[in-house]
Amino acid sequence: MPKVSEDHLAARRSQILDGARACFAEFGYDGATVRRLEEATGLSRGAIFHHFKDKDGLFLALARDDALRMADVAANQGLVQVMRDMLASPEQFHWLGTRLEIARRLRTDAEFRESWSERSAELQDAVLHRLERQKSAGRLRDDVPTEVLLGYLDLVMDGLVARMASGQGSENLSAVLDLVEESVRRQAAQD
Amino acid sequence: MPKVSEDHLAARRSQILDGARACFAEFGYDGATVRRLEEATGLSRGAIFHHFKDKDGLFLALARDDALRMADVAANQGLVQVMRDMLASPEQFHWLGTRLEIARRLRTDAEFRESWSERSAELQDAVLHRLERQKSAGRLRDDVPTEVLLGYLDLVMDGLVARMASGQGSENLSAVLDLVEESVRRQAAQD
Repeated sequence: MPKVSEDHLAARRSQILDGARACFAEFGYDGATVRRLEEATGLSRGAIFHHFKDKDGLFLALARDDALRMADVAANQGLVQVMRDMLASPEQFHWLGTRLEIARRLRTDAEFRESWSERSAELQDAVLHRLERQKSAGRLRDDVPTEVLLGYLDLVMDGLVARMASGQGSENLSAVLDLVEESVRRQAAQD
Repeated sequence: MPKVSEDHLAARRSQILDGARACFAEFGYDGATVRRLEEATGLSRGAIFHHFKDKDGLFLALARDDALRMADVAANQGLVQVMRDMLASPEQFHWLGTRLEIARRLRTDAEFRESWSERSAELQDAVLHRLERQKSAGRLRDDVPTEVLLGYLDLVMDGLVARMASGQGSENLSAVLDLVEESVRRQAAQD
């Protein structure tokens, strides 16, 4: 057998994830059957599950990839910028409907909840660190504890995910995000 | 056949809705099979579907009941109070996970999306009217258009629904809602 290069492995992995993302977006978590995953990725089940343990594994890998990409933006530009990016390319986030479909499992399946939390920890950390830096720099309001500001941004983010997943109108959302951003900022000279 | 009284019909309808709410909360939309709906309501499929056309009909009726109750609170006390009520009795809103599960259908099924919008129109109207009254009374900030404030509150509400449905920690959420409320209010004397 030929030796499989690292590059090849990474390309294969990314081919599987792209296909799975599209498949979840179109059919939902339960609807993304193994046969549909094969069609969407152009690979056999053997190849897919050589790279990922099972459907949960695929799902969590997608969630982790998103979280890492978002963490990168959040670390430098904040969570509101992550949300603005979501608004700018909604179709990329249709798969997040899947994240909503699994809400019940998060509530009822402790093991799954733990795997999920691990995967979103980087994003949480990135957002928290950025908030702390902003606070030190005097750009963040200091009359509200940082963890409340974090909880607030998280809640808005959850709302945005729900909105994007259901494809509902994004009218006004850019102005809404301005309001969100303003409400965590230190207010300069008031009139 | 005995004549069925209005009261009896209403009681039966509400028995079905209570059972369906619990069934959706436990098994999700797809998992709430007809057999499980029978068990949860203690009624036969014949009885259930005498009152409601199909599972979608049941789902939309639950959504409408919630929306009307929320609209009532929203009209008098605002959407933030609706959210505070949700925080106070989370278990009542576990069924809302189902609302998330149907996000993909809202995006892809136009007819379903329309039925859904009709059912949430009362809540939207109630919130909008209250916002307009608050604005006239000078209690609402007037530097942001009312529809942006409405979009903002809606987005936070969507986030809260997602949070409650997944049973995730509600720590800080009360303080977060204080922040939300404050950010739509007219700021009085600033320091």
